[in-house]
Amino acid sequence: MTATATSTTPSMPKGWVVPFPEGDGSQRDLLGGKGANLAEMTRLGLPVPPGFIVTTEACRAFLRDGEVPDTLWEDLRAALAHLESTAGRRLGDPERPLLLSVRSGARYSMPGMMDTVLNLGIDDVTVEGLARVTGDRRFAFDAYRRFLQLYGKVVMGVDGALFEEALQRQMGKAGVAEDAELPIDGLVDLTKVFAELIRREAGEAIPRDPVEQLHRAVQAVFHSWNGRRARDYRRMEGIADDLGTAVTVQQMVFGNLGSRSGTGVAFTRDPATGEPRAYGDWLPRAQGEDVVAGIRRTRHLSELGTEFPRCAAELTDALATLEAHYRDMCDVEFTIEDDCLYILQTRVGKRTAHAAFRMAVDMAEEGLIDRREAVARVQPAQLEQLLHPRFEPTAEPEVLTTGLNASPGAAVGEVCFDADDAEARAAEGRPVILVRMETAPDDLHGMIAAEGILTARGGLVSHAAVVARGMGKPAVCGADGLVVDDKRRILTVGEVTVAEGDVISIDGSRGLVARGEVPLVTPEPTGAFATLLEWGDVFRRLGVRANADLPADAAKARELGAEGIGLCRTEHMFLGDRLPLVRRMILADDEADEQAALDALGEVQRDDFRALLEVMDGLPVTVRLLDPPLHEFLPDPAELLVSEAKGELDDKGRELLAAAQYWSEANPMLGTRGCRLGIIKPGLYVMQTRALLEAAADVKRSGGDPQVEIMVPLTVTARELDLVAGWVRETVEAVLAEAGVDVTYRIGTMIETPRAALRADQLAQTAEFFSFGTNDLTQMAFGFSRDDVEARIMPTYLERGLLEADPFGTLDPTGVGRLVRIAVEEGRSARPDLHLGLCGEHGGDPASVHLCHEMGLDYVSCSPMRVPVARLAAAHAALGITTGSAADA
Amino acid sequence: MTATATSTTPSMPKGWVVPFPEGDGSQRDLLGGKGANLAEMTRLGLPVPPGFIVTTEACRAFLRDGEVPDTLWEDLRAALAHLESTAGRRLGDPERPLLLSVRSGARYSMPGMMDTVLNLGIDDVTVEGLARVTGDRRFAFDAYRRFLQLYGKVVMGVDGALFEEALQRQMGKAGVAEDAELPIDGLVDLTKVFAELIRREAGEAIPRDPVEQLHRAVQAVFHSWNGRRARDYRRMEGIADDLGTAVTVQQMVFGNLGSRSGTGVAFTRDPATGEPRAYGDWLPRAQGEDVVAGIRRTRHLSELGTEFPRCAAELTDALATLEAHYRDMCDVEFTIEDDCLYILQTRVGKRTAHAAFRMAVDMAEEGLIDRREAVARVQPAQLEQLLHPRFEPTAEPEVLTTGLNASPGAAVGEVCFDADDAEARAAEGRPVILVRMETAPDDLHGMIAAEGILTARGGLVSHAAVVARGMGKPAVCGADGLVVDDKRRILTVGEVTVAEGDVISIDGSRGLVARGEVPLVTPEPTGAFATLLEWGDVFRRLGVRANADLPADAAKARELGAEGIGLCRTEHMFLGDRLPLVRRMILADDEADEQAALDALGEVQRDDFRALLEVMDGLPVTVRLLDPPLHEFLPDPAELLVSEAKGELDDKGRELLAAAQYWSEANPMLGTRGCRLGIIKPGLYVMQTRALLEAAADVKRSGGDPQVEIMVPLTVTARELDLVAGWVRETVEAVLAEAGVDVTYRIGTMIETPRAALRADQLAQTAEFFSFGTNDLTQMAFGFSRDDVEARIMPTYLERGLLEADPFGTLDPTGVGRLVRIAVEEGRSARPDLHLGLCGEHGGDPASVHLCHEMGLDYVSCSPMRVPVARLAAAHAALGITTGSAADA
Repeated sequence: MTATATSTTPSMPKGWVVPFPEGDGSQRDLLGGKGANLAEMTRLGLPVPPGFIVTTEACRAFLRDGEVPDTLWEDLRAALAHLESTAGRRLGDPERPLLLSVRSGARYSMPGMMDTVLNLGIDDVTVEGLARVTGDRRFAFDAYRRFLQLYGKVVMGVDGALFEEALQRQMGKAGVAEDAELPIDGLVDLTKVFAELIRREAGEAIPRDPVEQLHRAVQAVFHSWNGRRARDYRRMEGIADDLGTAVTVQQMVFGNLGSRSGTGVAFTRDPATGEPRAYGDWLPRAQGEDVVAGIRRTRHLSELGTEFPRCAAELTDALATLEAHYRDMCDVEFTIEDDCLYILQTRVGKRTAHAAFRMAVDMAEEGLIDRREAVARVQPAQLEQLLHPRFEPTAEPEVLTTGLNASPGAAVGEVCFDADDAEARAAEGRPVILVRMETAPDDLHGMIAAEGILTARGGLVSHAAVVARGMGKPAVCGADGLVVDDKRRILTVGEVTVAEGDVISIDGSRGLVARGEVPLVTPEPTGAFATLLEWGDVFRRLGVRANADLPADAAKARELGAEGIGLCRTEHMFLGDRLPLVRRMILADDEADEQAALDALGEVQRDDFRALLEVMDGLPVTVRLLDPPLHEFLPDPAELLVSEAKGELDDKGRELLAAAQYWSEANPMLGTRGCRLGIIKPGLYVMQTRALLEAAADVKRSGGDPQVEIMVPLTVTARELDLVAGWVRETVEAVLAEAGVDVTYRIGTMIETPRAALRADQLAQTAEFFSFGTNDLTQMAFGFSRDDVEARIMPTYLERGLLEADPFGTLDPTGVGRLVRIAVEEGRSARPDLHLGLCGEHGGDPASVHLCHEMGLDYVSCSPMRVPVARLAAAHAALGITTGSAADA
Repeated sequence: MTATATSTTPSMPKGWVVPFPEGDGSQRDLLGGKGANLAEMTRLGLPVPPGFIVTTEACRAFLRDGEVPDTLWEDLRAALAHLESTAGRRLGDPERPLLLSVRSGARYSMPGMMDTVLNLGIDDVTVEGLARVTGDRRFAFDAYRRFLQLYGKVVMGVDGALFEEALQRQMGKAGVAEDAELPIDGLVDLTKVFAELIRREAGEAIPRDPVEQLHRAVQAVFHSWNGRRARDYRRMEGIADDLGTAVTVQQMVFGNLGSRSGTGVAFTRDPATGEPRAYGDWLPRAQGEDVVAGIRRTRHLSELGTEFPRCAAELTDALATLEAHYRDMCDVEFTIEDDCLYILQTRVGKRTAHAAFRMAVDMAEEGLIDRREAVARVQPAQLEQLLHPRFEPTAEPEVLTTGLNASPGAAVGEVCFDADDAEARAAEGRPVILVRMETAPDDLHGMIAAEGILTARGGLVSHAAVVARGMGKPAVCGADGLVVDDKRRILTVGEVTVAEGDVISIDGSRGLVARGEVPLVTPEPTGAFATLLEWGDVFRRLGVRANADLPADAAKARELGAEGIGLCRTEHMFLGDRLPLVRRMILADDEADEQAALDALGEVQRDDFRALLEVMDGLPVTVRLLDPPLHEFLPDPAELLVSEAKGELDDKGRELLAAAQYWSEANPMLGTRGCRLGIIKPGLYVMQTRALLEAAADVKRSGGDPQVEIMVPLTVTARELDLVAGWVRETVEAVLAEAGVDVTYRIGTMIETPRAALRADQLAQTAEFFSFGTNDLTQMAFGFSRDDVEARIMPTYLERGLLEADPFGTLDPTGVGRLVRIAVEEGRSARPDLHLGLCGEHGGDPASVHLCHEMGLDYVSCSPMRVPVARLAAAHAALGITTGSAADA
């Protein structure tokens, strides 16, 4: 059997166990990530303690059949013999006992989710051998009692708390406060107490035969694949349940064995900043946990050479070897036992978003990777992280507690305990953090008013989390130990109390809650950021535009790389100081009055358009003719009715009330909107078209190059589009003739009703472009009113798994996506040069951008801040790098 | 050339003119309906005055080229020569002049829409010959002046009013009041006045050569195909514009030539009652117009024998020949000239709906036609007519005016001139007819309150017409001469004045407006009605069920032939005296309180279900779990807010207000409805299922055979359906196990969101049946909120032709229909025995029923009163009889 053969025919392995030297790094499926890397490092000649791997195949067979495969123990015995000869020690040898670690290691990292056994091979006899060999009897018995504790719990199924209690009793007896202070006699006693505890609780003693111990340990690790924690973790991370885990069996080395020992963690580059120099922490005379636990103050890697010059040099070489080999930043766990360096584990290391960008660019420039790989190395999600505010890196926040990173970004504000209070405080201009046990739909106004949200309960798809992400507000949910006392208007975490109005800070990207004001930074795009996006632009096929209505937003979008405006909503041109004109138009008694109001609106809107076209000069600007129902420009009739009941309305107020009632609709989303409104008020679209084209003509005359796209909203029939497009074209031509200039323009339509998608072949007869309005398309395909369903229904649906993802966040591939596919295919067959874009909020969601690429769209359009994300996602899509997409439901 | 050759190769006719004996009845395309029937009658040996037909090919060539085809006049001259020899008279012969009629005649009847010239061949010379031959100089000059008048107007283009004025002056000069009283000298003068009038107005005299006159008359008829009236009519009736008209040229015969002449109209059976005996009216010494005009009192056909025994016998024979030949009731126009019978025209006669049913059954029983043809002979629209109230047949209404038959049925009520008044009066229990110049959306509440609607303006797709049809209310629109004086609160028609509050009656099926109360009848299905539907049932494949919630409706539906209930909405079980329980459930403080309310609801609902299952015993009953949003069970928050502003709310009121506000939604149509509500309030569906199954178990134990189908509303994902169907199945099984009986049940879902249709393959994994909720599917596919769009948008859209038909009335074949097709195909491929029905209001619309048949559904379900319509439409669909369907838009 060779490892390669095993990996290419995984369903028929020729053996169940692979010694490190026979495996390699490509065999993650068979050997698990940890095992494959250990094999790879062994091959690279790095100082890895010898060992072997029981394959995932063996685990799958065990889980399937309920017993280990026939020849597993045979294979294991052979590998063990090889290991013993390499290590020069034997398992169970009273003189020079071999001790083993038995660890899980699956295809995908599941840190801490499965079980581990250490120090296997120790017993009443070999412990003495270990003591002699190491010259440290205390060390030997401490290792023994740790073995019993772990094996008893993991393999024999004894409640771990019982060992802790016994340890406490022993410490009490000895009059010491820490286990490290236990005298040697106490430790020896403790091993007897633990052994008896196991016999009593498990109904049997630990097997005498260390090989038998090993068999049972391997099976226990297999079992832990299906433990509750492991299953929950896999569900959360989307890891398949049928992969199984490998088991790595390896000689133990000890960093706590006397003063010539130590242990540490090292990175080939700085994982926080990306700086190209080795980085790490270590502790003399310590075990791995000690470095991570943060109890002892660790020392910088740069200091290792002063105490262990030979090991430090060897480590430096090893790091260089690894980075060159893996062509990426690696981290390693290393141990020095008696002045000998061992590498216990390596993997491609985690890094901050900032570091990821810097490393990708540096490595490409160093020639370690190519630009394609550099682009592939950074994730759109990291980019989003870079664009959100975060705690100032040098700040030292007084962390109150941690919770789930429910919605990214950081915020600072005064604590408020209810939505009304939050709203009132925010109205006074004071920033607010809304703190609730959990939120409900009637907290919505408070969430809107708040800078950020903190809850004591609830998961990543709780109401608070879903709504906060939807709003783009930072949120920390399910914060540990947080108690909210609504009545007393305080929150407590352990001993700490924070009162209403006190300032706290939250970091929703990391799940941190801190007392007081932590300074925030909104990262500016760095050089690496811009470089990497430019590299990505070379690969991507999909264009990226921005949804922007105002010149400032458009300028920001252009700066962030937008190649045009995919959606300029004209609604804002009807609000603010224009509202009186709009109301005059709605309330007009006759056509002349209506036209006068329209003319006045046209005057001001021409200036709006000119400013926008100037900012986007040379790039396409898609202007959507007015879409919302007219009642959005009128007051709420219920409020006016209340005023009337109180006798507060004058004639003008009553006229407004009548108009508000006339235009109010049962389901405005499906009412008098879009081109329907345009058709019953034809002067409206003519006015908008005239204002836009007069602006374009102005820009053109001033030497600019305006690129106008006029978009008809909410069409359902080709005849509607024909009618409106006819008015538009007539107006455009009239204005251009008056102005005596030529301006490039296109007329197209939004595809935002299911029927429009199904009639795309007909619409494409007239439309020169389609822009998929996937927000509305999602609303209508699902029958989901976003306003109503997002808060009331969506959390339940996501929690119960009735939907894989919120379809307003990630484009539904099988329902809404199918409509888009139909329209793309049939629209293009009717008009081969039909230009196709998407301008729903999905345009900034990486999974949706991938889908748009697959569906053959020409561009996506998203909010200006998400333009970089869309650019990167589009590059990834073109490079065939998959992003998790919503599954069927 | 033979006529047959012409008809089989219509694009390459061998001649442009077909003499009657060479044509036949199958050549309607080439000869027009009238011409083909004259040819057929000639072949049958019936006494048809000789003539020939200028083909539609000639007309099309003329319209295409702007001039007549080269050889047309040659062909015409040959046919004329043949006609002269048959008639024994010659055109322009001073002694025995031949006079001709020149009439239009298209493929489809377009009565009165095109032009006609009569008495062609008369001039200053031949008029004297005609006088001598007929021995009636007055007759001859009257014929002459009529010729001049008609030819002058139709061919020479002189304004017809000028002839009328000249006639009036001549009558004034002669001191007479009627043209029939003009002395012979006056008539002779009049011919000179008319000739001079033509010369002056047209700039030329009528051609002297009668053949030239004929040429110009033929061209004038060709021209009239494209006249304004004709084009409008064709658009309304859906007749293609490129068919063209034939021109029939035929020897004139005169029923007004002395005492041995007469004219009349005869039917082979009674067109009003269907009785199998000849029926008709005639007048001695009269022309065709006199019989139709109703000025002279006509005589019954049975009296013809006493004055014209030979002609009467000949007519009886002719009628028998025609009915046997056409195998249908025919009507004929006949003229007796000098005791000789001539048949001038025949066609399959129009008949009342009642007569159509009787004739179809009688003829099948007589062996004239088979049952298949009998079924084909009646139209679903006629059936609808039979099912609506109408004026008592023996009533003699005082007809005020007539208008368009805008919405079928008859109504009686007090005249109201505005919607508020209509509403107020109706609230007092008084029936109301809303009378408006035209209606607008803000009349809606008045239309809802009224029994019927009458407007002075507006066509068949005006707001009033569309809305009335949607509501199923009678309406007459565009009533002739109706003046509505809102200020004085009266309506006038000519001299007649009707005041507000006076009673009028309208018949929207016929377009009649009558003063006072006309007694109404709602026809009971007759024997023929039931027989024909039973015959139709043999042919149809599509099942027909009813949408019924209450036992009485279900019983009615069963009586009308429903084969089950396709949709039992359970909403009503939550209204009325159950409302307090429902509100208690909504306002429940805790689960126990909620469950108690649910239990109480379950108790009463079990009785509701039992009654329904008993009525439908042995037939399937599809029960839809609760669908509407909860806020429909709560008061309007705006009203409560007003009450609160007035200080009228107590604690309970404020609690209701809070609940109403909490449950109020921005777009309830897309909100917390259907299974969404069921999922966030899971006890609800369990309660409903339990009540239903306990009822079914009761019925079963009493010896009945309940067939239960449980329908989950508004699903969008398969997981939703799985979850709810799981609860339902569990509850069903639990109840059946408790009851110890077995009940047949199916679990299925409505397909009413576009996404459900697109995910049918997934839904069909769980659903045993689909019912297409095409009302909602239409709302969501179009993005049309029916409540908002029907009144505000639809009239404009229909008037402008942006939609071919209201998609809420007739299923949209290309958008919504496409979704249905996808779901049918993919649902069946996932589950071959998937049962498929439709339960939107389209189930009672004939065109939609045809579409359902084509799409392969198993059944349609409609309101009980429309069950017969659906049965007949389904039979027609199976027989391949096409019904006009909405075209693309």
